[in-house]
Amino acid sequence: MDATTARRRLADARVGRLATVTPQGRAHLVPCCFVLHGDRIYSAVDAKPKRTTALRRLANVCANPAVSLLVDHYDDADWGALWWVRADGSGRVLALDDEEALRAVALLARRYPQQRVTGAVLAVDVQRWSGWAACS
Amino acid sequence: MDATTARRRLADARVGRLATVTPQGRAHLVPCCFVLHGDRIYSAVDAKPKRTTALRRLANVCANPAVSLLVDHYDDADWGALWWVRADGSGRVLALDDEEALRAVALLARRYPQQRVTGAVLAVDVQRWSGWAACS
Repeated sequence: MDATTARRRLADARVGRLATVTPQGRAHLVPCCFVLHGDRIYSAVDAKPKRTTALRRLANVCANPAVSLLVDHYDDADWGALWWVRADGSGRVLALDDEEALRAVALLARRYPQQRVTGAVLAVDVQRWSGWAACS
Repeated sequence: MDATTARRRLADARVGRLATVTPQGRAHLVPCCFVLHGDRIYSAVDAKPKRTTALRRLANVCANPAVSLLVDHYDDADWGALWWVRADGSGRVLALDDEEALRAVALLARRYPQQRVTGAVLAVDVQRWSGWAACS
């Protein structure tokens, strides 16, 4: 799958799975809403109830900026339609009053009217696009 | 979410997202089919076309056994129905003629009649169950 197709499929997906790496060298995996803006992915901590560990992704990024976001399509009845796209990049945690964060929150609000951002914004500068499709 | 509910929800999911960690400390993320057997998760390399890098997950596990599998439910129209479950554990790569691998392949074949296993089997001994639900 070429990078243009990968970018478009990721841009259109409503949910992704975000991986960061803990200081102990384990992957930390959460589903997340996001928006793609150029080669940058934004996601944010929102008002959904969380345990304190839900912010581990931000602490992880501060210690190790490597971030990976995966989107995929699964269809039990048609494995010929399967595909996935992965964006690997470098993450930055933005304070909510940062100008880039304010722009990101506006983009997220347009995409997810139901989301209420209450915490920091995670920006991921994508360095590598990968993708696979059963029928390519 | 208690561990029993987490285990049941993961067991029922048809697709998960599997994270391993590269020797360079990056997460490597792929969607995968799997079967839960007790506190052990099996997945396998199948006949779907792959680039050679698709087996990176197995090399990662040999160098760092930390594996994480996430399943989740997303519904754009009802954020009250969202949930996710994560299983963190230790991975082992089994050769296809290993007795445990043969049992795993049989379990996978029962669950996914469309899958044709052609490569190694990944066993993950789950050490920690986590979960979250919007309405819990």
